[in-house]
Amino acid sequence: MTTERQEEKDGLHNMERHFGPHAKEYVEAIKKVSPEYYKINVEWAYGNIYENKVLDDKTRELLALAALSCMGYPTNQIKVHVRGAINCGASRDEVLEVIRMMVAYAGFPSTTNALMAAGEALDEHEAES
Amino acid sequence: MTTERQEEKDGLHNMERHFGPHAKEYVEAIKKVSPEYYKINVEWAYGNIYENKVLDDKTRELLALAALSCMGYPTNQIKVHVRGAINCGASRDEVLEVIRMMVAYAGFPSTTNALMAAGEALDEHEAES
Amino acid sequence: MTTERQEEKDGLHNMERHFGPHAKEYVEAIKKVSPEYYKINVEWAYGNIYENKVLDDKTRELLALAALSCMGYPTNQIKVHVRGAINCGASRDEVLEVIRMMVAYAGFPSTTNALMAAGEALDEHEAES
Amino acid sequence: MTTERQEEKDGLHNMERHFGPHAKEYVEAIKKVSPEYYKINVEWAYGNIYENKVLDDKTRELLALAALSCMGYPTNQIKVHVRGAINCGASRDEVLEVIRMMVAYAGFPSTTNALMAAGEALDEHEAES
Amino acid sequence: MTTERQEEKDGLHNMERHFGPHAKEYVEAIKKVSPEYYKINVEWAYGNIYENKVLDDKTRELLALAALSCMGYPTNQIKVHVRGAINCGASRDEVLEVIRMMVAYAGFPSTTNALMAAGEALDEHEAES
Amino acid sequence: MTTERQEEKDGLHNMERHFGPHAKEYVEAIKKVSPEYYKINVEWAYGNIYENKVLDDKTRELLALAALSCMGYPTNQIKVHVRGAINCGASRDEVLEVIRMMVAYAGFPSTTNALMAAGEALDEHEAES
Repeated sequence: MTTERQEEKDGLHNMERHFGPHAKEYVEAIKKVSPEYYKINVEWAYGNIYENKVLDDKTRELLALAALSCMGYPTNQIKVHVRGAINCGASRDEVLEVIRMMVAYAGFPSTTNALMAAGEALDEHEAES
Repeated sequence: MTTERQEEKDGLHNMERHFGPHAKEYVEAIKKVSPEYYKINVEWAYGNIYENKVLDDKTRELLALAALSCMGYPTNQIKVHVRGAINCGASRDEVLEVIRMMVAYAGFPSTTNALMAAGEALDEHEAES
Repeated sequence: MTTERQEEKDGLHNMERHFGPHAKEYVEAIKKVSPEYYKINVEWAYGNIYENKVLDDKTRELLALAALSCMGYPTNQIKVHVRGAINCGASRDEVLEVIRMMVAYAGFPSTTNALMAAGEALDEHEAES
Repeated sequence: MTTERQEEKDGLHNMERHFGPHAKEYVEAIKKVSPEYYKINVEWAYGNIYENKVLDDKTRELLALAALSCMGYPTNQIKVHVRGAINCGASRDEVLEVIRMMVAYAGFPSTTNALMAAGEALDEHEAES
Repeated sequence: MTTERQEEKDGLHNMERHFGPHAKEYVEAIKKVSPEYYKINVEWAYGNIYENKVLDDKTRELLALAALSCMGYPTNQIKVHVRGAINCGASRDEVLEVIRMMVAYAGFPSTTNALMAAGEALDEHEAES
Repeated sequence: MTTERQEEKDGLHNMERHFGPHAKEYVEAIKKVSPEYYKINVEWAYGNIYENKVLDDKTRELLALAALSCMGYPTNQIKVHVRGAINCGASRDEVLEVIRMMVAYAGFPSTTNALMAAGEALDEHEAES
């Protein structure tokens, strides 16, 4: 009934739209460790920020890949958002070009790690289709 | 005549399309310190990567802002790419929402710095128009 | 009436308790650039996270200083949280030892920048008292 | 007899107090690769910094978790310091809240990695008790 | 015939000189995911930057290890450049001292990860010789 | 009389050899804020690490510049170590090529900031000579 419950519903709905049925599984693992962390992850990140329609879903996923490629180490999250980008209408070439562009901003070590993780996620996704 | 000269021409042309007449001034300052660094900045980043048309100009500028907002400290570059984003067709709201989204990827310190620098660049741009 | 308004009230209240009367001024500057960013900063960071009483106010401020000292570049935020730590009961020696400890986690460049910013904030605070 | 030997003794003693019997094993692996690195790790970090009593042991472990959670990739060290925090008197809820708080400073990718590693370390620790 | 083809040839040649026969395998894996990324990796990084003779090969490898040790997470790349450093004439002690020095610039978490990865690469290399 | 005093003497001596008469001034400012931080900066970083003769002074300064260029924000430290590199026998071209190489490891934002700071330090140094 409260705004918060609405944000949780919006967050779970946005996550499912971006990441498909795996989304729930992913956040349930987090909820088991910390319900308070689950709350901010689902309600804030996906229920509030992703609810703002100034940016469309595909653009958000490409921006997420840009951010993660600059970090290099969160390869699980890179794979999740590669699938998110494809689900939201990005092409294989767009995903790889976003990561390639990040060489200019963050150098080879992080972007090579991101690229190789993305390659795996793209191959897995194509094998499933 | 060589491919390299073409990349330099493409790079300078892409920079001007994104950043306007200030672009040349910016890279001339770099060239004065190191012509070899100027070369990779203009030819590689802007002559090769930005020449790939898989991503359009506006998307590239939003991706650049995402990367820079995760770092927080390069406030000069943030201002340059805020103007780049506006020049390539992004709205004030899109610029601010890209930066706001980065809170989820990089936290408040870097994105607050990016937001305040973007606010200045947007105000300067509007004062000039 | 809604939960959100409560979070905004809690957030502003927590910020004032930590940072004193300057808090409002600080977030008003952010609100002017982006009301949506203000919202997540006040409601989420200060209204939700800082509302959890598992950690006391002083511990939170020392943890904030630890995080910021590892980054090194957000010297404004370091100064704000040095005052926050003092307001929440930390001593000058505790503030400086938190930053010194971060050398082991993040090296000298970031912690030296943090230490010098903290030194300025501590001197300013003592001059005012 | 020299000051240095005292620092090595202090360092090993502080490490054992924080991390229990596993500490020695951990630093022996480092010593085998580089005795000079072992020296700075044991004598400086644990023999000098951790010897300063301005901060108590539990606070130091929470600060270490804050720093490591902002980095995200050093999951082995996060597990070591989760056990350290518990050994020094922190509760499961305090450990998880320190990590959750870091979302505000470093974003979700690093803190989610830290949270999941902490969850494993906490479960392992409880299984052993 | 073009300058670019020369840069690709130079890049592959420099990579082989630094990393030995494994180099080709490494970049072929990248090429399979993204030929455009392969191009910038081989031609720019190794064909242009590494072609500049102001710095000798051994110094370049030590500098690469310094950069990678400050990041901590790219352990594959650290192992590649440890072998590169040895191939270019660095001693085991020089490799380990470069990494140890980085504690002062980036702290223990990243450099300990780098040191342990380097220890493995050095042992593997010695077992092969 | 103790080992520690020797390390302080070695540290101050190494700093003066690298940075000239300005070194003392720099560490005195740090000592005024925190004598404990001064101690680890002088004794550990410069008294212990820089005392290891496996790496020569010039190589150490180039490695320091590599590390700092990957971070981008510590422009004061970059200027100090540019002077250190020149004092230890590096040429202007070597300094600039070390920074340029870091584009491959850390991207343009950090290395452009480092390059421009280095350009200023080199010009100041030449004006003084």
